Amino acid sequence: MEILDGKKTAADIRQEIAAEVERMVQAGQKRPHLAAILVGHDGGSETYVANKVKACEACGFQSTLLRFEDTITEDELLAEVRRLNDDPGIDGFIVQLPLPRHISEQRVIETIDYRKDVDGFHPINAGRLFAGLPCYISATPKGILELLRRHGVETAGRRVVILGRSNIVGKPLAGLMMQRAYGDATVTVCHSRTRNLAEECRRADILVAAIGQPGFVTADMVRPGVTVVDVGTTRVPDASRPRGFRLSGDVRFDEVAPLCAHITPVPGGVGPMTIAMLMQNTLAAARGDIYPRITAAD
Amino acid sequence: MEILDGKKTAADIRQEIAAEVERMVQAGQKRPHLAAILVGHDGGSETYVANKVKACEACGFQSTLLRFEDTITEDELLAEVRRLNDDPGIDGFIVQLPLPRHISEQRVIETIDYRKDVDGFHPINAGRLFAGLPCYISATPKGILELLRRHGVETAGRRVVILGRSNIVGKPLAGLMMQRAYGDATVTVCHSRTRNLAEECRRADILVAAIGQPGFVTADMVRPGVTVVDVGTTRVPDASRPRGFRLSGDVRFDEVAPLCAHITPVPGGVGPMTIAMLMQNTLAAARGDIYPRITAAD
Repeated sequence: MEILDGKKTAADIRQEIAAEVERMVQAGQKRPHLAAILVGHDGGSETYVANKVKACEACGFQSTLLRFEDTITEDELLAEVRRLNDDPGIDGFIVQLPLPRHISEQRVIETIDYRKDVDGFHPINAGRLFAGLPCYISATPKGILELLRRHGVETAGRRVVILGRSNIVGKPLAGLMMQRAYGDATVTVCHSRTRNLAEECRRADILVAAIGQPGFVTADMVRPGVTVVDVGTTRVPDASRPRGFRLSGDVRFDEVAPLCAHITPVPGGVGPMTIAMLMQNTLAAARGDIYPRITAAD
Repeated sequence: MEILDGKKTAADIRQEIAAEVERMVQAGQKRPHLAAILVGHDGGSETYVANKVKACEACGFQSTLLRFEDTITEDELLAEVRRLNDDPGIDGFIVQLPLPRHISEQRVIETIDYRKDVDGFHPINAGRLFAGLPCYISATPKGILELLRRHGVETAGRRVVILGRSNIVGKPLAGLMMQRAYGDATVTVCHSRTRNLAEECRRADILVAAIGQPGFVTADMVRPGVTVVDVGTTRVPDASRPRGFRLSGDVRFDEVAPLCAHITPVPGGVGPMTIAMLMQNTLAAARGDIYPRITAAD
């Protein structure tokens, strides 16, 4: 059984990006610049954004964090988004989700210029992903593919079973995994309405759990030799931890891991890869790899 | 065994649309207006476009057919697309595919204003489809869902196996079938790299064949009681037919049909439903059901 160490792989990727950034800077180009908008004080969001800022430092990126109280109106937030769209110094930016209820997340996402949408959430990027066209691929699905690839886990022709049909993991991952240019796998998406879920899971060569239910996947749901990717990161109260909680995956690691060829831990699996892919997308934005860079003339 | 009669169902839908159009006209609104661009003289394209024009008549729509020789340049064609984008009299329009090789289909598709893209091929519509947002759903996947629904074929919780991962059928159908608001099914997408394809197919409650290989699905690939949807419509040379060919589906109807609970014929199954759904999308465009209508002020 091999642990798919996302923490180490993400560190490798950050180093590769940092080396590329130094080459760019020495060639007279500017450092990639990622901006993040954070609204309110949600603990999870604070942590995620802080980790993204830290990753920017490790990659040699410039970063800008724009913080707003959760009293900001939707119109005010949309104006901030448009300001970043128009700022030629910013290569890409993200709006950390979730947003307060009085703001439409979808309206915010669709206001981001898709050419700076390094989260890959804009419908143009999502649509281009499914059509197999160049685009910003959202970070979690992209990170899962990269983690498998770097550990030599073959996906072509394999049965991939995805638990969960969310817009940020399940559906885009299915779209990537089934395409010739990416996973080239036989993909099944399961969810709350799936009958005989355990049977579906046992057919998987690669099982991806992305439902946010701690400990949902048990030993009887996998066959020996499976590769398990655990996307779940739920905060579970735990008085023994300094912060009063621990992160729990969707998989009962202790009982499932012994059956696996490969398995991702939580934390230290998919999470760090997600941030590393956001950095890759930002580098691609700065280099104009996917869309022509936006110039002041646009 | 019940035949899912797409021809009759499409005729019913055209009648419903025509009744709605008469209500609209009597209320002082204008008739929905669909335009189609046809480049060159491909026999299949000629037939499809002629059928779309006929369907417009049956629905009480105004229609405009713009024909161009296949010597038209990409720039000239894009200018025609922009003209239709800007024409407030046109509610929606399509560019019949395939286009000559010197023209980028993707560039043409992305130039169409997504608010008039009644084929649902623009990345914004594709992206919104996968995100479960209001959009123009491309006609073939939408027609398959509607045909099943109108014949009382339950999809929720059923195993749907889709053969083929094309941008116009396989992938968007998978996106629809897995969503709670549409199919709510457990979806598997199979393709040329799938191992044990027959075994995957035999697990299907609903099997959708969309690979364009005449007679690919044989009796040993289905289990008794299955619902089979045959999207294939390949022209096979046949000297005994007046036009020198017949349309062949992906399924060997004679041997598969006796095992089925329901099956679509070719022709007369999915094909007419596709055109009926294009009419539904055009009606929705004229009413501003999905996006606000484009006015001269935009």
